[in-house]
Amino acid sequence: MKVTIVGVGQTPFNRNCGVSIRELCFEAFKDALEDLNLTPKEIDASIICSAPEYDRQRSPAGLIAEYLGLNPQPTFLAESICSSSSTGVKVAYSFIKSGLHDIVAVIGFQKMSEISSAEVQERMGRGADIQWESPFGPMMPAGYAMCARAHMQKYGTTEEQLAKVKVKSGKYSLLNPKAMYRRAVTLEECLKARVIASPLKMFDCCANADGASCMILASEEKARKITDTPVSVVGIGAASDTQSTTGRANLTGLNCAIEAGKQAYKMAHITPKDVDVAEVHDCFSIAEIMAYENLGFCKPGKGGKLIEESQTYIGGRIPVNIDGGLLSKGHPIGATGGSQIRTIVLQLQGRAGKTQVDGAEVGLVHNIGGVGLYGNVTILKR
Amino acid sequence: MKVTIVGVGQTPFNRNCGVSIRELCFEAFKDALEDLNLTPKEIDASIICSAPEYDRQRSPAGLIAEYLGLNPQPTFLAESICSSSSTGVKVAYSFIKSGLHDIVAVIGFQKMSEISSAEVQERMGRGADIQWESPFGPMMPAGYAMCARAHMQKYGTTEEQLAKVKVKSGKYSLLNPKAMYRRAVTLEECLKARVIASPLKMFDCCANADGASCMILASEEKARKITDTPVSVVGIGAASDTQSTTGRANLTGLNCAIEAGKQAYKMAHITPKDVDVAEVHDCFSIAEIMAYENLGFCKPGKGGKLIEESQTYIGGRIPVNIDGGLLSKGHPIGATGGSQIRTIVLQLQGRAGKTQVDGAEVGLVHNIGGVGLYGNVTILKR
Repeated sequence: MKVTIVGVGQTPFNRNCGVSIRELCFEAFKDALEDLNLTPKEIDASIICSAPEYDRQRSPAGLIAEYLGLNPQPTFLAESICSSSSTGVKVAYSFIKSGLHDIVAVIGFQKMSEISSAEVQERMGRGADIQWESPFGPMMPAGYAMCARAHMQKYGTTEEQLAKVKVKSGKYSLLNPKAMYRRAVTLEECLKARVIASPLKMFDCCANADGASCMILASEEKARKITDTPVSVVGIGAASDTQSTTGRANLTGLNCAIEAGKQAYKMAHITPKDVDVAEVHDCFSIAEIMAYENLGFCKPGKGGKLIEESQTYIGGRIPVNIDGGLLSKGHPIGATGGSQIRTIVLQLQGRAGKTQVDGAEVGLVHNIGGVGLYGNVTILKR
Repeated sequence: MKVTIVGVGQTPFNRNCGVSIRELCFEAFKDALEDLNLTPKEIDASIICSAPEYDRQRSPAGLIAEYLGLNPQPTFLAESICSSSSTGVKVAYSFIKSGLHDIVAVIGFQKMSEISSAEVQERMGRGADIQWESPFGPMMPAGYAMCARAHMQKYGTTEEQLAKVKVKSGKYSLLNPKAMYRRAVTLEECLKARVIASPLKMFDCCANADGASCMILASEEKARKITDTPVSVVGIGAASDTQSTTGRANLTGLNCAIEAGKQAYKMAHITPKDVDVAEVHDCFSIAEIMAYENLGFCKPGKGGKLIEESQTYIGGRIPVNIDGGLLSKGHPIGATGGSQIRTIVLQLQGRAGKTQVDGAEVGLVHNIGGVGLYGNVTILKR
C-alpha cells in the first residue's frame, strides 16, 4: 500500500505575522485543503511540529487540533528542531502504512516574533549540549561557520562560491510570493555584506521568521477520493549525530544527512541521478554546498564547483531550492520542512508555475535540525 | 506481524534525583536492557518523550540518544504532556508495523527539580489555552477539582470514596521499591489533610517528581532473539479534547479517555471484562474514579462505589494501580506512561512479585495528558 501526500499548504513567511499560533496554523491548513475533496472530520489524526519556547503556549498540539476542527482525533507534538515537520511526515507515513490511520494532517509552525532576537539566540544556544557546549557560547552561525572554514581548508571552497548560493536563492525568490525576502542580490553585495561569523556574511545566513505549513497524507485508496494528483512518499531516511559539534569526526559534511540520504535512496530504489528536483536545508550557504555532496549530487569537495557552474539552477544538472530556499524564504523552524515538501509536491503535480521543472517525476527534500544534529531526507514521486 | 515489548525499565521516582537528564535516562535504559540479548547498536531508532521547559536543555532527543549509544540512529521528541510516553509507544508501534524499523527504544523522562515549585506551576498553567484560560489562573488541581465537584453533584460521589483511592494506593506503594511515597495512609488521614483545591485534599493529588522510564519494542521476529517473554501490543487508542476545560460538554468524565478506550478495545478485539489488570492515570483521586467509568470497568457514576467495595484491589473485579499509581509513585510527566506500561508488562511476564495478579493475560494502560486534553489507552497481551 502506497502512502501519498494529497495536499500542501503554507502561509507567507514573514517577520511579524501579527496573529496567534492557532490562526497561523489555520491559514496553512486552509491552504492545504483548497481544491481537496476532504473535510477536517475525515482526517484521522494530526501531528503538530514545532520547537518549544519561542512562543508561550505549552503543548500546542491540542490547541491547534481543536482550532482546526481536528478534535477528538488524536494529536501530539513532534520535535526535531528545524526538521520537525519532516519528522512529522515520517510519523504520518508510519501511522498510515501501519494501518492505524488513513488520513493524517502534519502541521508545522513557528512564531518567533513573540520574543526578542536576543531571546531567540539564547534558546537556539540551548539546543546544543547545555552542559558541555552551550556554556562556551557557540550559536548556529558559529557552528556552520566552522563547517565552512573546514570545507574551505580541505577542499578549497571559496567565499565566492558560498555567495553564489545566495545569488541563486535571490533570483528564484522573485518567483515565490510566500518568501520573506523577495530580492535578487549580486555577488558583490554578498561579498561586501557585514560578517556574521567569519567566513559567513549576512547573505550567507537565513533569518528567523513566523510561518506555518501543512501537509495532508493519505493512504493510496483514500487519496483517490480526495484528489486527482496525489504524490507518493517513496523514500524516508532519518539519522542523528552528536548534540555538540565537538563530538564530530569532521565538519566538512553532515553525517546525519549522509545516513538519511542512504536510507531514503535505498527505500525508494533510486540513486541521486534519478532526482529531478530537490529542496535542501540551506540555513546557511555552506549548508547547501555540503548538502550537494552529502546527497550525492556531486562528489565530496565538489559542491562549490557545482554552484559555481550553475548546475543547481533550472536547466542545470539538478535544480535545487528553486523556491528561494531558507536563505530567501525565511526559516520559521517547525514550518520549514513542510514548506520544502510543499515546493516539491507542487513541482511533481506540475503546479510550480514559472519555476516548473519540465517532466519532474522524482523530488527530494533534505531537512536538517541543529548543526547536523538531526538529518531527514524524504523522496517523493509523481 | 505482531509488535511486542521486549524490555521495560525505570529509575526510582523521587524529589531530587541529583543527576543530569542524560544520566537519568541512561539508568532507565540500562534497567530495560537487563536480561535482554540486545545491544544499543541493534536498536533502529529511539523516541524521547518529555514535556519541555522543566529543565533547560532544548531538543533533548539528540543528547539522550547520543549518551545511550543510539547514534547515528534517528531520534526525535514526542510530547503530549503527561501522556508523552504512551504517544511514544504508539509511534514506535507504527514505526515497526510499517516496516520502517525493527527495534525501537521509547525513553520518557522528566526532571522537575531543576526549577522551583512555583515555576512548575507556572509552566503547567501554560499547558492550558494561554489566550482564553491560563490568564484566569486555573492550575491542574483546580481542573480536576471541578471534575470532582461535578461528579459528586451528578452521581453522589463522596470525599470518602475519593480518599479510598489513596488508601489503596498507599497500601500497594509499600510493595513498590521505585515509588516516591512508600507509605500506607488511613482514610482519616486523607480526609483531614489540608485542602489543595476543594474537594481535593493533599492525598488526593499526585506530586511532581524526577524520573525516567524506558520501553524497548520489537517486531515479533526480532523479539524471539531478544527475550523469551515478549508482550504483545494488541490495542492502541488515542484522542484529544479541547485545550481548555471551558470547552467541554461535561466534566464528569474525560471524553478523550472514552474515545481512546473504544479504539483500543476494538483493535484488540476485547471488551472491558477481558482486562485482567490495569494502570490508570490517577494524577488525582477523582481521575482514577472517572477512569473506571470511562474505560467501562463499571457504569458511569458507579466509580465511587467500585473503590468503596474494594473491587479494584487484587482479588477484586479488576485490580487497578497496584504499583501505587501516580498518587504514590510520583509523576515525572514524560516518564509516567512508560512506568505504567512497565508495571503491566511485568504483570504479564509473571514478574510482578508480591503484587502479581494470578494468570494475568491481558493488561490495560490509561494515560492522560493535561486535564483530559490527550487520552491514550494501550492494551497488552501475554
